[in-house]
Amino acid sequence: MAEFKSKIKTIEWVENYSKMVDQTILPEKFEYVNIKTGQEMFDAIKTMIVRGAPAIGVAGAQGVVLYAQELEKDNLSRDEFVKTLLEKADYIATSRPTAVNLMWAVKKQKDVIKNSKSDIKGIVEELKQNGIKLENEDIEINKKIGDFGAEVVPKGAGILTHCNAGALATVGYGTALGVVRSAFANDPTIKVFADETRPRQQGARITTLELTMDGIPTTLITDGMCSYFMKKGMIDMVVVGADRIAANGDTANKIGTYTVAISAKYHNIPFYVAAPLSTIDTGIKTGDDIVIEERSREEVTHINGKIICAPDVNIINPGFDVTPHELITGIITEKGILKPDYTKSIKELF
Amino acid sequence: MAEFKSKIKTIEWVENYSKMVDQTILPEKFEYVNIKTGQEMFDAIKTMIVRGAPAIGVAGAQGVVLYAQELEKDNLSRDEFVKTLLEKADYIATSRPTAVNLMWAVKKQKDVIKNSKSDIKGIVEELKQNGIKLENEDIEINKKIGDFGAEVVPKGAGILTHCNAGALATVGYGTALGVVRSAFANDPTIKVFADETRPRQQGARITTLELTMDGIPTTLITDGMCSYFMKKGMIDMVVVGADRIAANGDTANKIGTYTVAISAKYHNIPFYVAAPLSTIDTGIKTGDDIVIEERSREEVTHINGKIICAPDVNIINPGFDVTPHELITGIITEKGILKPDYTKSIKELF
Repeated sequence: MAEFKSKIKTIEWVENYSKMVDQTILPEKFEYVNIKTGQEMFDAIKTMIVRGAPAIGVAGAQGVVLYAQELEKDNLSRDEFVKTLLEKADYIATSRPTAVNLMWAVKKQKDVIKNSKSDIKGIVEELKQNGIKLENEDIEINKKIGDFGAEVVPKGAGILTHCNAGALATVGYGTALGVVRSAFANDPTIKVFADETRPRQQGARITTLELTMDGIPTTLITDGMCSYFMKKGMIDMVVVGADRIAANGDTANKIGTYTVAISAKYHNIPFYVAAPLSTIDTGIKTGDDIVIEERSREEVTHINGKIICAPDVNIINPGFDVTPHELITGIITEKGILKPDYTKSIKELF
Repeated sequence: MAEFKSKIKTIEWVENYSKMVDQTILPEKFEYVNIKTGQEMFDAIKTMIVRGAPAIGVAGAQGVVLYAQELEKDNLSRDEFVKTLLEKADYIATSRPTAVNLMWAVKKQKDVIKNSKSDIKGIVEELKQNGIKLENEDIEINKKIGDFGAEVVPKGAGILTHCNAGALATVGYGTALGVVRSAFANDPTIKVFADETRPRQQGARITTLELTMDGIPTTLITDGMCSYFMKKGMIDMVVVGADRIAANGDTANKIGTYTVAISAKYHNIPFYVAAPLSTIDTGIKTGDDIVIEERSREEVTHINGKIICAPDVNIINPGFDVTPHELITGIITEKGILKPDYTKSIKELF
């Protein structure tokens, strides 16, 4: 299988600092920022210069390295160094309190600190190496997801995706868009249809940008158009990411995903979820138990700071919806593609 | 049945001029403009100060009256007056060349001119009265549609609509929103869910405005959210307008309508089309024969003049889609509600 070389590395450790794509100015500008202190990393996560659960996790791990490098210069005793650094690690973890990957990655770094037998210089080096390891692992997982997924992409397929489960939500490569990248490496005749994904427009702002940068033919459509193109025979499969997958395969993802899944079913088009195993939460039995975050009114009423509706209209703005397992053809993971019955196939894997 | 008093009169003849809502500045400002010459009316139609097929028809008829009033002052012979006025009428009809209602209404005025036995002053008066008649007829048709439709609205229903088939697309009252108004007059516990309707956002910009002005509880949602609220049990029926209905009931309407219809079917929610009989084109056998207008790239790539995606992304922007008859529960007209088999029920009516 041919390998795809993406131009996009969302976050990367460079010698003694972190280099990341500034996602607050997309799609108008594609620029990198260098993050050189722990506090700068805290702010970068909080202000969403870096976004996407996997990318935030690696950013958190790198933030601990940055604090360690700063404290190394303070002539502390080893005990003082360890105590202060553990506090700084906890502080970093509060930058986006709901991001599970952030907690997880910071905890990995805290384990390194606690278990190290080295001196201060040695601890700093071990943290740095562990950060790089987490960074590389994220890309490797995505490439495995991509390669498994590519096997179910028909020759010359039109692939519809919703939101952004791409390189810019991860360290690089992407999950749903990892499938696209791996498929494109072997078949440059595939075409992507990217849903705009209102209200926050991640499909328009981020997916179209990262795919066109990588030279993958991409058509932007509004969310209501998906059925039109399915009926026309221009869409052969759907692949989306996931925020959380229940033990029975029910999948929470960006609002609008469920509508796409229903339309795919109506047109007999395969609908795939691409996600690392860490997204599967076997503690949650079904999608009914997934709490849906309600987001701000302004995301719907305003675009680029300008109001688009009656000022006193009512708004309900769920950030996610749940696609029931019966609409999902397969769940593409780094260990292969899970098929129904998901309760059984997920249980076998864990 | 209680009668609903709407605050909105989109276009109205006042003594010797036309008063209309300026739809180019919605939703930020709700203001009227007075159109006092034929050329001003031509420009108002062309620049979409007035929009919506039925409203444009009445505007065209009023434009002929305005030209007649101007020519009346020119001391022309009766023959010169008639000849020049017929030319001006043809000119008015070119302001939006694809609007069938515009041609139809201008032709009605040309028939008045050709058939009149009166002097110039008499012709002007006959045109004025005919313009007022067309204006009143449009509202009457909508009220009949509204009243028939209200009978199928469940008590306390959540009603989803897409785009704007409302007072602001007609002289007043509306077709799909006419159903909402008639239902609300009898049951103030109903609630409306308005799809934003990307790319042109008529649901956000126009529907939320006219419904909140009339005091009808309205929630704005993005197009991808419809299925979420259907699954929650918050939507009990869907009602939309139509741009063209084929002899078998297939219905062309604003892009995104078909996606809503599929989702309604999946959730077993009734899906109604509300439209005057003039929308049914018995010369068209099925929806496959309806040509779908492709609109500009900028409608998708820009919002309020600002780009929202990669500048070089591909765009396909169909303005309409076709909802197949098997997804339509009923077609609400001024003569009652048509039910399947539509080929049969439409044939019986014509």
